[in-house]
Amino acid sequence: MKRRYLSLTQYDEAIRIMKEVFPPIGMTERVSIEHATGRVTAEPIYASYSVPEVNLAAMDGIAVRSEDTKGAADQHPITLENYYQVNTGQIVPDGYDAVIMIEDVWRDDTRCTIRKSAFPGQFIRPAGEDIRQGELILPPNHVIRPFDIGALATYGITNLLAVSVHIALIPIGDELVPAGARPKPGSAVESNTLFAREYFSGMGATCHRYPITRDDPEIITEALCHAVQDNEVVVLFGGSSAGTKDWLEWVISSCGDLLFHGVGMKPGTPMLLGSLEDKPVFGVPGFPIAAACVIREFASRLLEWWGLAPYPLFSTRAHLAQRIHSDLGYEEFIQVSAARVGDRICVMPHSRGNGVQMSLVRSNGYIRIPASHEGIDAGEEIQVRITCPPSQVDNTLLVCGVRDECIHLLGDRLSSNGYHLHCCNTMVTGALRILQMKNCHAASVTLPRTDNWEGTDHLARIVGRDFIRVTVAEAELGLVSRDNLKIEDLDGARFINRPPWVPARMLLDMLLDQNAVQAENISGYENQARSEDTMVSAIRNGSADAGICRKRTADKTGLSWLPLGYESYELVFPLASLEDSTTADILIILKSPQYRESITRLGYSTTRTGSFTPIASFWRDSESSWNTEVV
Amino acid sequence: MKRRYLSLTQYDEAIRIMKEVFPPIGMTERVSIEHATGRVTAEPIYASYSVPEVNLAAMDGIAVRSEDTKGAADQHPITLENYYQVNTGQIVPDGYDAVIMIEDVWRDDTRCTIRKSAFPGQFIRPAGEDIRQGELILPPNHVIRPFDIGALATYGITNLLAVSVHIALIPIGDELVPAGARPKPGSAVESNTLFAREYFSGMGATCHRYPITRDDPEIITEALCHAVQDNEVVVLFGGSSAGTKDWLEWVISSCGDLLFHGVGMKPGTPMLLGSLEDKPVFGVPGFPIAAACVIREFASRLLEWWGLAPYPLFSTRAHLAQRIHSDLGYEEFIQVSAARVGDRICVMPHSRGNGVQMSLVRSNGYIRIPASHEGIDAGEEIQVRITCPPSQVDNTLLVCGVRDECIHLLGDRLSSNGYHLHCCNTMVTGALRILQMKNCHAASVTLPRTDNWEGTDHLARIVGRDFIRVTVAEAELGLVSRDNLKIEDLDGARFINRPPWVPARMLLDMLLDQNAVQAENISGYENQARSEDTMVSAIRNGSADAGICRKRTADKTGLSWLPLGYESYELVFPLASLEDSTTADILIILKSPQYRESITRLGYSTTRTGSFTPIASFWRDSESSWNTEVV
Repeated sequence: MKRRYLSLTQYDEAIRIMKEVFPPIGMTERVSIEHATGRVTAEPIYASYSVPEVNLAAMDGIAVRSEDTKGAADQHPITLENYYQVNTGQIVPDGYDAVIMIEDVWRDDTRCTIRKSAFPGQFIRPAGEDIRQGELILPPNHVIRPFDIGALATYGITNLLAVSVHIALIPIGDELVPAGARPKPGSAVESNTLFAREYFSGMGATCHRYPITRDDPEIITEALCHAVQDNEVVVLFGGSSAGTKDWLEWVISSCGDLLFHGVGMKPGTPMLLGSLEDKPVFGVPGFPIAAACVIREFASRLLEWWGLAPYPLFSTRAHLAQRIHSDLGYEEFIQVSAARVGDRICVMPHSRGNGVQMSLVRSNGYIRIPASHEGIDAGEEIQVRITCPPSQVDNTLLVCGVRDECIHLLGDRLSSNGYHLHCCNTMVTGALRILQMKNCHAASVTLPRTDNWEGTDHLARIVGRDFIRVTVAEAELGLVSRDNLKIEDLDGARFINRPPWVPARMLLDMLLDQNAVQAENISGYENQARSEDTMVSAIRNGSADAGICRKRTADKTGLSWLPLGYESYELVFPLASLEDSTTADILIILKSPQYRESITRLGYSTTRTGSFTPIASFWRDSESSWNTEVV
Repeated sequence: MKRRYLSLTQYDEAIRIMKEVFPPIGMTERVSIEHATGRVTAEPIYASYSVPEVNLAAMDGIAVRSEDTKGAADQHPITLENYYQVNTGQIVPDGYDAVIMIEDVWRDDTRCTIRKSAFPGQFIRPAGEDIRQGELILPPNHVIRPFDIGALATYGITNLLAVSVHIALIPIGDELVPAGARPKPGSAVESNTLFAREYFSGMGATCHRYPITRDDPEIITEALCHAVQDNEVVVLFGGSSAGTKDWLEWVISSCGDLLFHGVGMKPGTPMLLGSLEDKPVFGVPGFPIAAACVIREFASRLLEWWGLAPYPLFSTRAHLAQRIHSDLGYEEFIQVSAARVGDRICVMPHSRGNGVQMSLVRSNGYIRIPASHEGIDAGEEIQVRITCPPSQVDNTLLVCGVRDECIHLLGDRLSSNGYHLHCCNTMVTGALRILQMKNCHAASVTLPRTDNWEGTDHLARIVGRDFIRVTVAEAELGLVSRDNLKIEDLDGARFINRPPWVPARMLLDMLLDQNAVQAENISGYENQARSEDTMVSAIRNGSADAGICRKRTADKTGLSWLPLGYESYELVFPLASLEDSTTADILIILKSPQYRESITRLGYSTTRTGSFTPIASFWRDSESSWNTEVV
């Protein structure tokens, strides 16, 4: 039906081809030291003059001839007439070869008395002490730091030759709108060139963002041929996968050489590399998560090889908190949250959905799974590359489970205390197992509750007694419908349900049980909406009659809503962590009026916020004796 | 004689006072996302709309109703008439609930045939999959990374509220000239505000550099009072020590409150902190090395506490290569070069001279010695903070000993291979001991030589047989004089000597020995010039008649010069390191015509460059049998 990239080039092989075809170009440009931080020196830089150029005083005091001071002692003070008063940094005049510090000088109007002799060179900064004229300041290939800027100025350097690469960033796609415009459904904001400019600039490159180019081979060809004149590298975003409108392979093959299309890496598989006028042309998939990966793991490797600054990545060993699978033959890059849990660094993978740009934001690092691996087991040690300041990893709180606004607001408060809360979305059972393995700090779970029933038995089943739960907030759950239905009216109505692990569903099952209603009698019981929003819109557009959701969700729609119980947001901690200052800080925030106000404003109830509940062990005394009653 | 800071405030106490007097100010400003990388969010940022807003295709293919596909199989193909062709990212129209990828579709003119059923939701990106309207994108106190910029644009954010601190940087000193002007002797280029602006900007602050202010209390007062209007922090560089012209304490005490003057830290002891209109005023010593330390260890700690981005320091454990002393009562910060040697990270301290700004440039990290310590022994483990990209430490070659241009040029060449050569100045004996303890990669030593004599016995004495030396270059040594003196003429002439560890001196001693001349008969034999330059200028201005120096040094002065022998520059390696690829790379460079040309141009001889010499053991078979002959 359509042309496709039939065979993938292996990642390592693709990198090899790229380096072979595009050796370093050695482009340089002269930059002022005021704009040189982060740039890379293209040649050695030598001092324009010696510093200091002459002998200087290293102390406030008097310059003397050391000969004149011979024999001075407490018992034998010497009075000097030939001296010269100097402050630190002032010239020691010719003929003086030592400085005596002011504390050791007794002075009257014109004469000075000393009680200690001075040795030749005492408290003198000799000429050239710091640097000598023509001495090396910086070698080539040096990434310039703030410190270096000051030193360059001191040694008479005001500009320098820096490694230079100009990069054209061209976004392609009819569906794109520029940042600031509201995209229509199916459109998207063009964000790749914004990200890429910041990323490449951080390596010391100069980027030019080009306007959005429509999905038209002639227009793309024109944009490409124009950009290649003014730049050493061209990166085209979008138009490289195999859909109807993906012209890129055709364009590059027509006006240049296609080196490969399709690489065994994920994300970023549909990338291509071409050569036009001997310059590299990258075709990068338009999905931001794939674009970021190709920029980071491919294009930037070329720039690094050409002498630009490698990203100051910090890399460390870590334990994987949750098993991840990976496809054989694909070098896979997975965003993770890394945190120090106890004495280990643990990492939790984020969503690998191609459309989930938030996984770049929510993560603070990433891992690489070689093409030869089918996956990595929970607890295995892996290498993780950190994308935040390394010290942040030590202050990261890793929470697994339900992501909700009341947890985000807790994170906002914690950020003022220097913590970084990372909440990784997992099923409750998964979150509790990760917590049990000591691979995260806390599990974030939701539980159903009515005034006379708590659906906590599954918690106890999983984690046992060495844990406590702390209530963060509660949200009211109720029956949502167009026509003010009650729970008794469900028989005959078309219900829209939620998955079994959602508190609304647990509450329904409990109510059906109480009312001795069989689930199979509820029409639509098997119909599981993925989100409250989906449920509510099904009810609004008439394809269902009723469901169970939070009051706030119902309120936004104008549907009627009847209270049935609560959804409780809980953090589960190991009992031992109650002694940690972090846990103490969380409890203080939960009890603070500021936090309570902020979640009350969003419709949560704070009646139980900050209260502790020990998790009763489902199995008393390890696994030996059973007790099916929850205490 | 002058006012002085009589009592020092302890470092930790000074930090405590600073934080107590200046709580976070909560200043913010709105910045475009195009300029937001590195800034810190001042409030949580929420998505303006859901992404995607509607269901989208996650594959190129056809959108279908999953109901219509039930039962499709290889044996039972189903032909669909109701379908809609979609590319990845396009809207899945209402009524379709699955996408079948193009590979699984057989198409003729208007109809599609499939051989596999589709489940509801298959290859569909549901609305809100990435983010839902109002969902948290970034928490407050988040340092914005390039990735975040792209995501913010995608979610409809074009500007954000960032933590904001405006900092006035005011240089004080009659001796200062602006960057680019050539300082007269005793003057210096004003480089502190250049360095500080880069450093603070890296934390997300906005800096204003003010013009150089003269050493005049009225002018300083005016500059300070003006700067405090437009900024939240004022940093005054210079004018804080106790010399005649140091007005700063007086100025701050007159128009504001002096909190402390003199802190138990080195460098940076004379710093002061004052308060003017409730804003912090830092008085920072003018010496760049002290200024850098106060900026890094003091001012930036306030900014960090106020919510700016902490410097992305990387900190690690390391072994100290050489004992360092430290003064009790002073928190001492020492620049070091850190490198991985074998399986350990080793650090070598750099010069602590207040005037040696190059120590900031030559180092790639620093260590902190607590006020309660008198020093740290060689081999002890300490914490080191790295100021270069962490990965560079692994590629750093740590060489101890003589620093010379032929070594620098070797470093230049090595930098193209990805190595960072750090050459730390130490005495030859010290360098060899550090090498023996495996605390550096190589020792850089100089040896005297004539055609029939080599002064290598001290090498053998120190390191023993497990080492080899590799010649880097040789420089000719000879007798320098105004009047074409020969070695026989020395009796009666006023000689200027060099210290005992310098090859020129060893050569002289050998020659005196050969000629049976007693050293005490040489007038000026005890007179030791610290550098060749000092020696040569003493001869030029007539205070001495002759000395021994390199041909290049003599040539620059027009003095006469008579060849006597050679100074040989050698790298000493452990024998075992001959197997390392690094050593191989060094040897390849030494043998390359490019390197040889570059040092020949500087007057070195390359006859022996790259040649190996095993270091004969002075003690044969460990220390049991002596042999005073060098083999």
